[in-house]
Amino acid sequence: METLMFFLLFVMSNMVLSTKLSNDHLSRHSGGGQLVELSSSYCLSWRLATETNNLHGWRTVPIQCLRHVEAYMIRGQYDSDVKLIVDEIRNYIDQLVLSDDGMDAWILDVDETCLSNLYYYEGKRFGGDPYDPHAFKEWALIGICPAIPSILGLFRKLVETGFKVFLISGRDETAFGQVTVQNLHLQGFFGFQRLILRSEAYKGQSGVVYKSEIRRKLMEEGYRIWGNVGDQWSDLHGEFVGNRTFKLPNPMYYVP
Amino acid sequence: METLMFFLLFVMSNMVLSTKLSNDHLSRHSGGGQLVELSSSYCLSWRLATETNNLHGWRTVPIQCLRHVEAYMIRGQYDSDVKLIVDEIRNYIDQLVLSDDGMDAWILDVDETCLSNLYYYEGKRFGGDPYDPHAFKEWALIGICPAIPSILGLFRKLVETGFKVFLISGRDETAFGQVTVQNLHLQGFFGFQRLILRSEAYKGQSGVVYKSEIRRKLMEEGYRIWGNVGDQWSDLHGEFVGNRTFKLPNPMYYVP
Repeated sequence: METLMFFLLFVMSNMVLSTKLSNDHLSRHSGGGQLVELSSSYCLSWRLATETNNLHGWRTVPIQCLRHVEAYMIRGQYDSDVKLIVDEIRNYIDQLVLSDDGMDAWILDVDETCLSNLYYYEGKRFGGDPYDPHAFKEWALIGICPAIPSILGLFRKLVETGFKVFLISGRDETAFGQVTVQNLHLQGFFGFQRLILRSEAYKGQSGVVYKSEIRRKLMEEGYRIWGNVGDQWSDLHGEFVGNRTFKLPNPMYYVP
Repeated sequence: METLMFFLLFVMSNMVLSTKLSNDHLSRHSGGGQLVELSSSYCLSWRLATETNNLHGWRTVPIQCLRHVEAYMIRGQYDSDVKLIVDEIRNYIDQLVLSDDGMDAWILDVDETCLSNLYYYEGKRFGGDPYDPHAFKEWALIGICPAIPSILGLFRKLVETGFKVFLISGRDETAFGQVTVQNLHLQGFFGFQRLILRSEAYKGQSGVVYKSEIRRKLMEEGYRIWGNVGDQWSDLHGEFVGNRTFKLPNPMYYVP
C-alpha cells in the first residue's frame, strides 16, 4: 500500500514537474495583456518595495496587483529573476576555495527556495488571499511540491563541490518532518547534510530569531557558512547570516 | 560677485528643478518603445538583483540594459518607486511617538537620496560608463543637483515632526563641504541637525565601515536612530543601522 502510494505520488509529482513554471501554463486565467499587466507602474513599485524589504508585515497582495503578481509568477519573469540570481551564486561559488576539513557549509531555505508552492498559491489568488494554515497543511502533506529547477541545479553543484548543505525550514517538525524529506527526495534533492525543521523549542518564534539560533548552533559546531539563500528577508537577517546572502523573489507572501 | 554667482546658481537650479524627473524629459534619446525597453526580461532581472543586493561590486550597467535603465530613470517608474517607499516611510513615522528629550534621530544619505545627479549621469549613459571621479567632482562643485521631490517632502515632515535629521554622505569633506551645504539649502533642505561628510580619518574606507562609525558616534551621543534612508545597501548595512532602513532605487551605480 505504501509503495503504491509512493509510486502514485512520484507519477503525480513528475506530471506536475513536467508542466513546470512555464510561460504558457495557466494562460487561461490571464487572457493576454501580459505587457500591460506586468507594466502596471504601481504594482512594479509595490513588488520592488517588498523585494527590497521596504514593506514589512503585509498580509495579502494588494487587490489591484493580483493579476500583475500572477503574470509575474507564471509568465516567465519570476523564472528569469531566479535564474539570474542562481547564475550570480554560481559565479560566487567558483571563486571560493574550500578547505579539507568538511566544514564549509551552505544554507538553503525550503519553501519557495528548493520547493515551489505555486500550485497551491494558484488556488489562493497568488497571495491575494490571506495565509490559511489549514489549507497549506493539507497541500504540503501531499508532498508533491515541485523543485524550483535552477535551485535544484544549484543544490547539486553545491553538493558536488563539497559543501555541506543545510536545509532550514520554518515548517513544523512534527507535522511536516517526514513528508518534507520524502518531497525533497522525490524532487531530486539528495545528499544534503541535514534538513532542519522547527521543533517544539522554536514554536511561535519569528523566522529571524529561529533561523539565527539554528545558524548559531551550526557555527558552534564549527561550520563556516559561505552562502545563504532564501525567499524571505527573515531567512537572511539576524545573526550569523553567512558570508553572502541571496534573496530570491517572492511577491506572494511575507514571513516575519 | 559672490551674490551674483549665488543668484545665477539659484536660477539655474530652479530651471533644472522645474524640468524635474519628468516622464517626457529626454524623450529625444529614446524614440518610443518604452514598454519594450522596460519589459526586457534580462534587464528587469538584473535591476531586481542589484536592488535586492544579490549583485555586488558591479562597475557599469550591462550594455544591453543601457536603454532599459535610461527609460526606468526618466520615464516615471523610478519616480513611482521612490514615491511608494516614501509613502511607506510616512506611514511608519505616523506610528512613532517621539520623546521630549530631542534625541530622536533620522538618517538620510545625500546623493540619489536627497539630491539627484540624474543630469550628470545622463552624460554617463545612465551608468553605462564607469565611475569618473574627475568629472563627478566638476559636476558636484557647481552645486545645482536638484532635490528628489518626494524626499524633500519627507525631509520637511521629519523636521516638522521633531526628528533630528542627520545627512550622512560619502562625499569628501574638504572638497565638497561648502558646496554641498549650499546645494542643499538652494534646494530647500533647511533645518537638518548636521551634514556629515567624509573627513580625512575615513578616507579610503568602504561606505559600510565609514557610515557605521558615524552612526556609532551618534548612538554614543545618545541619539535613537528611528530610520535610515539611502540608495545604496552600504548606507543601510553594518552596525547601528537604525530601527527601520529604507532602500531607494539606484540602478546607475554601486558603492561598496
